Amino acid sequence: MEQLQDYTQRIAKQAREAAVELSTISGATRNKWLKRVAQELRDSQSELLAANEQDLKSGTAAGLSSALLDRLRLTPSRLEDLAQAVEQIAALPDPVGEVIEGGRRPNGLQILKIRVPLGVVFFIYESRPNVTIDAAAICIKSGNAVILRGGKEAIHSNLAFASILQKTLKEVGLPEHAAQIVESTDREAVGQFLRMNQWIDVAIPRGGRSLIERVTAEARMPVIKHFDGICHVFVDESADEQMAVDVLINSKCQRPGVCNAAETLLIHQAAADRLLGRLAEELQKRGVELRCCPFSFPKIPNAVPATEQDFRTEYLALVMSVKIVDSIEHAIRHIREYGSSHTDAIVTQNTAAAAKFETCVDSAAVMVNASTRFNDGGEFGLGAEIGISTDRFHARGPCGLREMTTYKYVVRGNGQIR
Amino acid sequence: MEQLQDYTQRIAKQAREAAVELSTISGATRNKWLKRVAQELRDSQSELLAANEQDLKSGTAAGLSSALLDRLRLTPSRLEDLAQAVEQIAALPDPVGEVIEGGRRPNGLQILKIRVPLGVVFFIYESRPNVTIDAAAICIKSGNAVILRGGKEAIHSNLAFASILQKTLKEVGLPEHAAQIVESTDREAVGQFLRMNQWIDVAIPRGGRSLIERVTAEARMPVIKHFDGICHVFVDESADEQMAVDVLINSKCQRPGVCNAAETLLIHQAAADRLLGRLAEELQKRGVELRCCPFSFPKIPNAVPATEQDFRTEYLALVMSVKIVDSIEHAIRHIREYGSSHTDAIVTQNTAAAAKFETCVDSAAVMVNASTRFNDGGEFGLGAEIGISTDRFHARGPCGLREMTTYKYVVRGNGQIR
Repeated sequence: MEQLQDYTQRIAKQAREAAVELSTISGATRNKWLKRVAQELRDSQSELLAANEQDLKSGTAAGLSSALLDRLRLTPSRLEDLAQAVEQIAALPDPVGEVIEGGRRPNGLQILKIRVPLGVVFFIYESRPNVTIDAAAICIKSGNAVILRGGKEAIHSNLAFASILQKTLKEVGLPEHAAQIVESTDREAVGQFLRMNQWIDVAIPRGGRSLIERVTAEARMPVIKHFDGICHVFVDESADEQMAVDVLINSKCQRPGVCNAAETLLIHQAAADRLLGRLAEELQKRGVELRCCPFSFPKIPNAVPATEQDFRTEYLALVMSVKIVDSIEHAIRHIREYGSSHTDAIVTQNTAAAAKFETCVDSAAVMVNASTRFNDGGEFGLGAEIGISTDRFHARGPCGLREMTTYKYVVRGNGQIR
Repeated sequence: MEQLQDYTQRIAKQAREAAVELSTISGATRNKWLKRVAQELRDSQSELLAANEQDLKSGTAAGLSSALLDRLRLTPSRLEDLAQAVEQIAALPDPVGEVIEGGRRPNGLQILKIRVPLGVVFFIYESRPNVTIDAAAICIKSGNAVILRGGKEAIHSNLAFASILQKTLKEVGLPEHAAQIVESTDREAVGQFLRMNQWIDVAIPRGGRSLIERVTAEARMPVIKHFDGICHVFVDESADEQMAVDVLINSKCQRPGVCNAAETLLIHQAAADRLLGRLAEELQKRGVELRCCPFSFPKIPNAVPATEQDFRTEYLALVMSVKIVDSIEHAIRHIREYGSSHTDAIVTQNTAAAAKFETCVDSAAVMVNASTRFNDGGEFGLGAEIGISTDRFHARGPCGLREMTTYKYVVRGNGQIR
C-alpha cells in the first residue's frame, strides 16, 4: 500500500504539473468544463444524494448537531443552486491574461503587467460539501490547480463530487489533476501538504479558529486566512433613527451565523438617550440577547452585564454586545482593540464623522450607512468568492477570481540594453 | 538590564502604535520628513563617515573580503547619492489613499477599493548600510512603520543612520518609532520578531539564501522573498545576430554580480551554427568562462564541460552555462526546471515564438528582445525599490511603494440593507 508521504507527494506533484499545463489552456476550454460540471451535477443527482446520505448517517451516528447536519445535507434544490453557481462562474470574464497596467518607457520598452494564475492552491475546509465544487470552479476558472481537503464528515459526498470533476476534466481535455480531492482523512496529510512549498503556492483554510491557527503555524507557503468576524455597528451622534434601526437589525439579524454579521453595537453617548431604547427594543423583539457595558446596562430592560471577553467574542448567534462610547475616537479605538478587521459600519449624518471612520478604521470593509452584511463577493460584484480574507496581504475582503491570481511583467523591446 | 524578549516585544509594539498613527498622517508631512532626512545626510556627513570607519576597521580585523568591505563603505559621494535617492522618493506620488477601483452597485452602494499601508514591516538585510535609509524612506513614504535589522558588520553605520531617523521623525511630528533599528545583534532577536505576527504584518529578508530560508521557515507572518536570480537568455532560431550579441552581453556582463544578470545561454540548434561562435567569442573576450553542454562544448574553443549543477547555479560572476536546445519548447522546459522564475529573455524575430515565450515562461519578468538587466524598479518606472520579489504572492518582481501597500473596501450607502 502507498505510504501517506508518497501519496501526498504524488498529489502535490500532479497538481504542479496540471498547473503548468493549465496556464496555457484557453479560457474557452475552462468555461466549457464549467458548463459540463453544471450539467453533470444535474445528471448525477441521485448518485450525489446517495453518497450524501451515507455522510448524514455517519454524522447522525457520531452525534453531530442538527445545525451541522443541515450544513452537511445536499438536496435537489441545493444541487440545482450549485449548478447555477457554476454556470455563473463560467459567465464571468476570464481573469487570466488581463493587462492590468501597461505603458512605454522613454527607451521604447513596452512594459505590461499581466494577470496570471497563482499556481497550485491547497484548500482546506470543513463541513459543507458544496464548497468542493465552488472552490474547484473558482480555482480552475482562474487557471489554478487545486488540492481539496474537505472534512472527514463529508468524505462520501466529496468523493462523489470528485468523480464528477475527474470525468468532466478528462472529457474537455483539461489536465485531470487540475482538481484533486484528498482521499486520506489522516490529519498528518494536511501537515505534509503544508510543508510542500516547492509544489504548492498558497494554502487557504476555511473553518474554525483551531484549523486556521494550525495552518498558519505549519504552512511553509503563503496562507489566505478566513478568520473571525467580530463586526461592529457604530451609531454616531447624528445618526438617523430609522436608518440606525434598519442597518443594525440587518447587520445583526438577517443571518446571524455568518462572519459579516455584527456582534457589537457601539453608540455615541450623545445618541444613547435618543436611540438606545428603540434599538434595544427592536433587537430584543427579534430574540437578541443584549450584553451591556455598565453605562448601557441600566438603560435596557432585561439586559445582561457584559464581560471583557464578550467584546472579543464572535457569537454567530442572536447575542450582541452593547457599549456606550464617549466619542467617535473612542469607537475607533474600541474597534481597533476588540475587532478583527473584518467589517465595521458607522451610521451617521455627519460627513466629517464618516470620513474619519473611513480613514481610521482599518478593516477589510468599512461601511458608511450600510449593513455589514454587504461585505460579500456577490454583493461587491465579484461574482463568486472562495472566502473573505482577514489578511492584509495579497488579498483582503471577498476573494473572487482576481484574488486567485498574481501578475508577471512582460517587457517587449527591439534590442534595448542598459 | 532589559531581557531580549522584553526588548523585541517593546520594539514591535512601538512599531504597531506608530503604524496606527502613521495611517492618518498626511502625505505632505511624510514628504517633509523625507526632505529633512536628505538634508541631514548632507549635514551629518562627518559623523556618518566616522561611524562607518569603525565598521570598516572591525571588518578588516575580522577578515572580510575586499568586495564585502567595499559594499560596507560609505563615501561622501555615496552619501550624496543616498540623499538624492531620498529626495526622489519624496517626489513620487503618494500611494496611500489612491482609489484603485470604484463603482456604484445596482442598489446604489458606492464601493471603493482604496490603497492603504501594509502596517508594520520587519526588514532584515545584510551588509550595505545605505539600505537602511532606502528601506526607511520607502516604508514611511508608503505609510508603514519599519523595524530594521541590518548585519552586525554594519552596526555602527546603522546606529548613526538611526539617530538621523529618530531626530528627523521627531522634528516633523511623525511618530518616532515609525522607523526603529534593532540594536541587538543577537541572532535570536530575529527569531523572536518572526513569531510576533500580532504586531508585524510582513517580513522582508534581503540577503543570502540561508537568511531567506531561515526567515521562510520561522516567520508566522507573510514574507516577501528576494531569492536567487538564475536568469536565462534564449537565442531563438530567428534571432538577429547583432541583437543577440547586444542583449546577451548586456545581460551577462553589464553587472555580473546582481540578481537580474544572466547565468545561462540557451540557443536553438538551428541558430547554433550561425550564431554560437560569435556569441561565445564576444563573451570570452569579456572574460566570461563558458560551461557547456555536450552539444555546445565541441563548438567552442576553451570551453569547460558543464555539470548538471552548473545549470542550477547563480554564479554572480563572469561564468556562464551554455546549452543547445532542440526547440523553443525545450528552452521553456529548461527554464521551468532550472530557472528561479526571476527574469528570462528571448531574442527572436518571430512573433509566434515571442508570444509563446511570453505565455509559457512563468517568471516575474519575461523579456522579449531586451536585456534581463531591465527587471528593476527604476527601469520599470517605480521610482524606488525595496527589493525584487521572487514570490508569486502579493508582489512579484520589483517592489516599490505600491507593493508596500494593501487595500481596503469603503462602502458608502444611505441605509442599504440586504
